Amino acid sequence: MTAAPTNPHHVVIVGAGFGGLQAAFDLAGAPVRITVIDRRNHHLFQPLLYQVATASLATSEIAWPVRYLLRGRPEVTTLFATVTGVDAQAKRVLLEDGDTLSYDTLVLATGARHAYFGHDEWEPFAPGLKTLEDATTLRRRILVAFERAERESDPKRRAALLTFVIIGAGPTGVELAGTIAELAQHTLPPDFRNVDTRKARVVLIEAGPRVLAGFADDLSAYAQKSLESIDVEVVLGKPVTECSADGVVFDGTRLEAKTIIWAAGVRASPAAEWLGAPADRAERLQVEPDLTVPGHPDIFAIGDTVTIAAWNGQPVPGIAPAAKQQGRYVAQTIRTRLAGGKTGPFHYKHAGSLAQIGKRLAVIDFGRIKLRGAIAWWIWGIAHIYFLIGIRNRLSVALSWLWIYVRDQRTARLITQGSSKVAR
Amino acid sequence: MTAAPTNPHHVVIVGAGFGGLQAAFDLAGAPVRITVIDRRNHHLFQPLLYQVATASLATSEIAWPVRYLLRGRPEVTTLFATVTGVDAQAKRVLLEDGDTLSYDTLVLATGARHAYFGHDEWEPFAPGLKTLEDATTLRRRILVAFERAERESDPKRRAALLTFVIIGAGPTGVELAGTIAELAQHTLPPDFRNVDTRKARVVLIEAGPRVLAGFADDLSAYAQKSLESIDVEVVLGKPVTECSADGVVFDGTRLEAKTIIWAAGVRASPAAEWLGAPADRAERLQVEPDLTVPGHPDIFAIGDTVTIAAWNGQPVPGIAPAAKQQGRYVAQTIRTRLAGGKTGPFHYKHAGSLAQIGKRLAVIDFGRIKLRGAIAWWIWGIAHIYFLIGIRNRLSVALSWLWIYVRDQRTARLITQGSSKVAR
Repeated sequence: MTAAPTNPHHVVIVGAGFGGLQAAFDLAGAPVRITVIDRRNHHLFQPLLYQVATASLATSEIAWPVRYLLRGRPEVTTLFATVTGVDAQAKRVLLEDGDTLSYDTLVLATGARHAYFGHDEWEPFAPGLKTLEDATTLRRRILVAFERAERESDPKRRAALLTFVIIGAGPTGVELAGTIAELAQHTLPPDFRNVDTRKARVVLIEAGPRVLAGFADDLSAYAQKSLESIDVEVVLGKPVTECSADGVVFDGTRLEAKTIIWAAGVRASPAAEWLGAPADRAERLQVEPDLTVPGHPDIFAIGDTVTIAAWNGQPVPGIAPAAKQQGRYVAQTIRTRLAGGKTGPFHYKHAGSLAQIGKRLAVIDFGRIKLRGAIAWWIWGIAHIYFLIGIRNRLSVALSWLWIYVRDQRTARLITQGSSKVAR
Repeated sequence: MTAAPTNPHHVVIVGAGFGGLQAAFDLAGAPVRITVIDRRNHHLFQPLLYQVATASLATSEIAWPVRYLLRGRPEVTTLFATVTGVDAQAKRVLLEDGDTLSYDTLVLATGARHAYFGHDEWEPFAPGLKTLEDATTLRRRILVAFERAERESDPKRRAALLTFVIIGAGPTGVELAGTIAELAQHTLPPDFRNVDTRKARVVLIEAGPRVLAGFADDLSAYAQKSLESIDVEVVLGKPVTECSADGVVFDGTRLEAKTIIWAAGVRASPAAEWLGAPADRAERLQVEPDLTVPGHPDIFAIGDTVTIAAWNGQPVPGIAPAAKQQGRYVAQTIRTRLAGGKTGPFHYKHAGSLAQIGKRLAVIDFGRIKLRGAIAWWIWGIAHIYFLIGIRNRLSVALSWLWIYVRDQRTARLITQGSSKVAR
């Protein structure tokens, strides 16, 4: 690496998700040099990942090369590398290929993966949705199920191929269920000859008592009613007790289904393990009020990899705006510290919760103001296009959505990673 | 499969490339029922596949679900299945899963794969470009090479990482070489800190005496000069004698290169083998003047899987317009036969040859009229957008190209199918 003539304070940011990237953006002009490390070469707009999984958007519409996003910042170096640990004593990050990287301040923004609560053996049957590859894998499974149904003559096997189970009714589960229902009801029917894709069953199973538990009660009720209006079967209060290649078991009932999607839980990245720091059941680091790791004032941790009760005493939710606020707070705290000052504790400000259910169906919980239906759907769409990075992707996503809106056509209906041979 | 009330003549088309799809389109209204079989679920616009490999376009911009393209044709059934053979005696197509399908008329439009002329062991080191997966694999290799160079401190290894060898200087080789040079010269430089991507070497190696051998001599010379003007090194008359993980050997010289791309040759699909029919060195079926397989008047074969001297006595070139003309001819012949008539032999009409070299650099050989430079480049672009299917993809590709033209930005710069761990 070329050494700068002076040797400014080195901030190492691990993870280029919403939190890490925001910290890098907000450190612009600070007397620091920055290294951003990610094991992917791209930043991913996770809130729309389910739309890649359901063939509505292309992968490149919701992902940007990290180094492209930071190209205008000569003091920022982007590393495409996997971090395997932290030597907090020596203030070094350990990389998988044996390299190490010294830091003055470390920001851990390493995110989370889906988790199976002690049932990791379910993963092959019920894949989750966190990466672009997860999304193209799900897309392949969903589309291949319809293809196989088209060729299946046994009614029982055909029914299993046309049954889609989504486990977990948070925003991702609700959005997946709604979009698969739309796909089956509106996009696919004219393309198939032997099956009526409108007969596909989409079953959303939730262990808790309601869908969208993070929203107000009446919005949950509205969301459930809306899902049912587009033929999603909603099953509440029933934990899934078995997943296999043939289906799921809940409440003692076996449901034959060839496609199962896991949207029920996440586990934090191993950041807590790297540091031997206290963590909760989901392995999220328990951080100090200033988002530093206990005993390590030079290590910040933000986003889905941490848990902190900084929302009027409640835990901060694992959503993009929360990670961004934490990234912004960390950047500000680093600046203030370098100037010899001190910052107060982090406070989360909740702007609102949004979830799309289907075409012209969405819910928005702004706290005092609650919106539903078409108005919420339009605001949901405009907000998501606004939060995409760059005019190029905004135009592209707007064009894709326009086509879905007007023609019910989803152009990313590609079965990749294998021919019919591999896929079946 | 639901049986139609009557039992019309059944045309089975294997392969939904340019030829097979055109045959299906042109049989509209004929007294037939049609089954289109493909082992991929999508039709691929292969002439622009190199743009996916070089991060200029997204996969969904050049691929369409086959059954979507045929959705308005109730007499057409699309099967997502792999054909493993033909029983010409029983007039049946054999599918991989053991199913069989009876035909009255069979159209084999199964295309070609890249071929290594007896050096199949080179494939892992020098992948070719025929499918969407090939393209995303190449894209990953090219982008990962730059990423690894950014982290490599050994000058010799870094040089090997920044050396891109393309073997074969037909249109695909020329277009790949030109676009990789553009990527290195114009798109990537601001994003990297430790390497100057402009120092990347792009080496185009051709065994024959000139680039674009299918074009007129002066256009070949112009293409070579244009490639050299954008810093592509052109090596002519030197067959590659070795490919390995470290580079290539040609003319007794070893060139260290971590990225090698094969654009040197194709081999037809096993259609000739299925039928025990006569084939040329590249395994292309030798068909009758009416495109039927010798001894099998009910089996047509078209496109890259056949060879026929129907271009004023010269072999028909393996390009999209040729496959389409053959598809159209076959559809017409089937109609005429069903009406009790006879058609004359197939004649290929060559509209012209086009190749893009770089920004504002292209060559077009219309026979009498030859174009080069910016005018050829604009015609090339407009022609390709025109030949895409549907206004949606035309808009999308136009938007992608506008961004490349104005900002040199390629938005599909995604390394997928593996994290930094897998990719390195």
